[in-house]
Amino acid sequence: MHVVKIIPVIGLPIIKDGDDLGRLICEAAAKQGTPIEDRDIIVVTHVIVSRSEGNVINLDEVIPSEFAKNVAEETGKDPALVEVILRESKSIVRIGGGHIIAETKHGFVCANAGVDKSNVPGERNVTPLPKNPDFSARRIRQRIKEISGRDVAVIISDTHGRPLRNGEINVAIGMAGIKPIRDRRGEKDLFGYVLKVKQTAIADELSSAAELVIGQADEGIPVAIIRGYSYEKSEDATAKDLIRPKEKDLFI
Amino acid sequence: MHVVKIIPVIGLPIIKDGDDLGRLICEAAAKQGTPIEDRDIIVVTHVIVSRSEGNVINLDEVIPSEFAKNVAEETGKDPALVEVILRESKSIVRIGGGHIIAETKHGFVCANAGVDKSNVPGERNVTPLPKNPDFSARRIRQRIKEISGRDVAVIISDTHGRPLRNGEINVAIGMAGIKPIRDRRGEKDLFGYVLKVKQTAIADELSSAAELVIGQADEGIPVAIIRGYSYEKSEDATAKDLIRPKEKDLFI
Repeated sequence: MHVVKIIPVIGLPIIKDGDDLGRLICEAAAKQGTPIEDRDIIVVTHVIVSRSEGNVINLDEVIPSEFAKNVAEETGKDPALVEVILRESKSIVRIGGGHIIAETKHGFVCANAGVDKSNVPGERNVTPLPKNPDFSARRIRQRIKEISGRDVAVIISDTHGRPLRNGEINVAIGMAGIKPIRDRRGEKDLFGYVLKVKQTAIADELSSAAELVIGQADEGIPVAIIRGYSYEKSEDATAKDLIRPKEKDLFI
Repeated sequence: MHVVKIIPVIGLPIIKDGDDLGRLICEAAAKQGTPIEDRDIIVVTHVIVSRSEGNVINLDEVIPSEFAKNVAEETGKDPALVEVILRESKSIVRIGGGHIIAETKHGFVCANAGVDKSNVPGERNVTPLPKNPDFSARRIRQRIKEISGRDVAVIISDTHGRPLRNGEINVAIGMAGIKPIRDRRGEKDLFGYVLKVKQTAIADELSSAAELVIGQADEGIPVAIIRGYSYEKSEDATAKDLIRPKEKDLFI
């Protein structure tokens, strides 16, 4: 019997520009008695990645465009915040009911183009998504390797609303060292039936699993270690594999 | 440090019509040395629930309608299978590319209206979703309480594709004893910022987490125990809370 464990990483400092996340994660994991092991999956919330990369914007320094002002009036949002959201977007899915659903430059469709206000120090500060979340994940993975000698996978997660279902779940927006989709087509089921359509988005499932320990805002846990899950390694993993092009979408 | 464990339940027999799932789960969990505990979350894949309820259909006994024959020709599917899918559906979202995306009578939007061929014994047998998955979950929860004396939550899960993103994830289609959405609006973040929009679909995240041990088809694991996750109890829980009415959807 093979138990999968979701271990919160506690005791990380407040992350700021220039912090070496890989080193801080290794140290915090060791200090709490769960040092990083080979094949651990390290799930990191995007907001601390952006903060470590200095990707924090003070709204007082943003000059909103005319369109941003129009959208701000329509949605009741701060015009400078709308301006930041628009700068992160390559298209808009919907503006209405106080919400902006946008497609980010990376291709993710989410509220506010992923621009986050929560867990950002400074009353007027917001964080966009990391500029290149796969690259960020690779760098953290590389640092963990250098410091601990351990070969891990790293997933950068974000909280997304989704079509058709209420509530948000955590999904993967960047990754390193792990294939995001497990292609099970051709495998046989319990009774010998060959699976025809099964492709499991395990990077998203791992992100959601991590949220079970990350999602305790009052404790401020931005990182989880998932231990005991057998995954397929990949050296050129990318979260782009999880984005379905609009023209291929059957649901909408 | 509070670790969440995802424990596979191994050694269950092949489930058939009339089987007492609650009893079988208690016995298998005890036998493998992880007896059910209070506040465990038991995630059960829908296909064994349907099988235990005799909800298995032999395609040789199904007479397809004219429309089912048309759709079968369009999609390359078996006309009898299409007929079963249509009987489970209250509307069709898309027919194309060999796929049928339908809205089930319960309100779930998924491929083939949730009708499953895999993990069903008998070459011509398929399983629809349980008729009332919340009711099924309540019955399993009640039986576990009667047999073990333990107060648990039960989630019935299914594998769903989703709009905008590639790959399937496991989501909750029925539940008992657990509030499906954790409403965090009004809570404060690490820096005192009051969360405005956070409603986490924890029942879906728990289903996805369970899939990390369930999704090993070759081992045939249809049940997982999630232990160590603190959830809000609910005596009138329903998966309907996870369905977003089309008219409220901003994404599509």
